[in-house]
Amino acid sequence: MLEPERILRLDNGRVVLLDQRRLPDEEVELVCRSAHDVAEAIRSLAVRGAPAIGIAAAYGYALTAERGEDLDEAFAVLVDARPTAANLAWALREVQAADDPAARARQLHAEEVERCRQMSVHAAGLLDLGSRALTHCNTGGLATGGQGTALGALAEAWSRGLLRHVFVDETRPLLQGARLTAWELEAAEIPHTVVADAAAGYLLATGEVDCVLVGADRIAANGDTANKIGTYPLAVLARRHDVPFYVVAPTSTIDLETPSGAEIPIEERDPREVSLRFPARNPAFDVTPAELITAIVTELGVHRAPYAEALVGAVAA
Amino acid sequence: MLEPERILRLDNGRVVLLDQRRLPDEEVELVCRSAHDVAEAIRSLAVRGAPAIGIAAAYGYALTAERGEDLDEAFAVLVDARPTAANLAWALREVQAADDPAARARQLHAEEVERCRQMSVHAAGLLDLGSRALTHCNTGGLATGGQGTALGALAEAWSRGLLRHVFVDETRPLLQGARLTAWELEAAEIPHTVVADAAAGYLLATGEVDCVLVGADRIAANGDTANKIGTYPLAVLARRHDVPFYVVAPTSTIDLETPSGAEIPIEERDPREVSLRFPARNPAFDVTPAELITAIVTELGVHRAPYAEALVGAVAA
Repeated sequence: MLEPERILRLDNGRVVLLDQRRLPDEEVELVCRSAHDVAEAIRSLAVRGAPAIGIAAAYGYALTAERGEDLDEAFAVLVDARPTAANLAWALREVQAADDPAARARQLHAEEVERCRQMSVHAAGLLDLGSRALTHCNTGGLATGGQGTALGALAEAWSRGLLRHVFVDETRPLLQGARLTAWELEAAEIPHTVVADAAAGYLLATGEVDCVLVGADRIAANGDTANKIGTYPLAVLARRHDVPFYVVAPTSTIDLETPSGAEIPIEERDPREVSLRFPARNPAFDVTPAELITAIVTELGVHRAPYAEALVGAVAA
Repeated sequence: MLEPERILRLDNGRVVLLDQRRLPDEEVELVCRSAHDVAEAIRSLAVRGAPAIGIAAAYGYALTAERGEDLDEAFAVLVDARPTAANLAWALREVQAADDPAARARQLHAEEVERCRQMSVHAAGLLDLGSRALTHCNTGGLATGGQGTALGALAEAWSRGLLRHVFVDETRPLLQGARLTAWELEAAEIPHTVVADAAAGYLLATGEVDCVLVGADRIAANGDTANKIGTYPLAVLARRHDVPFYVVAPTSTIDLETPSGAEIPIEERDPREVSLRFPARNPAFDVTPAELITAIVTELGVHRAPYAEALVGAVAA
């Protein structure tokens, strides 16, 4: 497991991040000296993953407080860095309300580590012995600052002897699976195979996948879940092949103010991430309807349909 | 439209191919002086697309005949170059049975051009006015030596004023969509947008796609269709969103000796096409069950379920 402070930390008036754009080729730290720097690191995906960008934003706010700079401006710059993840605004509201933003930001990070541990334990319990799992994007330490959500659950299942293999969607256009998830699985010595995103249907059709685990960027009140582009097709295919489809995410990802997936803003990123040569579109997320989700797993436990009730209870807890 | 002889030709004892590995950056010809050279061009995807590799193989066989070299060996080397496409073995049997293999190979090419024209006319008639189409891989002139199958149909629909836009799956790992289809659409001045393969579900869910058109590498007797990896997920998604899913392919793609998709050999290519750094798998094709196909369009017309009867009739015609 990656040490939480190696992924991101507040350090001597700076926010220091492991620059995820450079992985797996180089392990380089990026030093942010202002909320603007942190917002740019979030926008450019030097730090990414809904829980991790929440913590990074909290550290960016705390940094601003330590320096006695404009906190309202820092909040505004950070909350707009990416539109889809719910944790970003949540974490910023938490540090904004705190007497000591730096202490609260570090506490949020520690809580995230503990939430990852708890949801991994809950989700690992859903896997059968000898499971071959498919996952998408990166939901490990890099994405969370802890042991991960879906990938944390797979690591927990591996340590219990339940997991046999992980298929990793490469996750175009930015290859978070092929670059980051494979790197984390290699470090954890968990058997893994990278495949093109379009190959997941083939693996499901040939019976090589027993379960699909993904993270979430925002979960609406009815259970509809926004996650990395390509998640929705996996859910549709998993349903067709009667393979369970699990969303693993902290309760901070649940946004009861958003009634359904239709109201989740979907970020369209620079088309040049897809093609430098021809016209392109680059929606970064899609929405998986609640009806395709076998269970949503948070640090509080395993939630099943009807999600509207289950999620209200989870957030209230 | 690309001139057929620019894509591939038998020329003075050589087979000359437009090297598709170098597109869209460079337009370079590859000169093959033996059946082995042609087989290697097919294996390495310098020429690709089921109809085009059939013609290339026929030219490779004819070249061997012209040079008075071992025809049985040429047949064996060429027929094994790629396992999934049905047209390869079909075209080789045609030139093998001919008195003048070179004349027959050129005739096959001319017939393919005519088949493309006919199937494009039939398939274009299926599109509604103002259609926004999604396509996968490359099925244009480069893939066929003619005007194309699915992409030929889209060009025909454009010329009739029926087509509004083409979404192009980039088609990982080798980016035939992002490199070749976009290049052909640009040349034809047809509005197009490249998207990551995993984004097709988003476009279907948001109602931005009116029809899906793809080619085929082999169509089994029951209508199950092998095509580029990622085709099957598109068919599943199209069905979920009530969007018609059309397969456009010449009758030479139909293989009545193969009863169903389960018997179609699926080529697994070098995993280094997917990842140079981590373990990978690279299935090159998947199988779309006949029940998900709205219609199969050949040069003979539009065939609909039950396909077992329709395809026997088409091949007998």
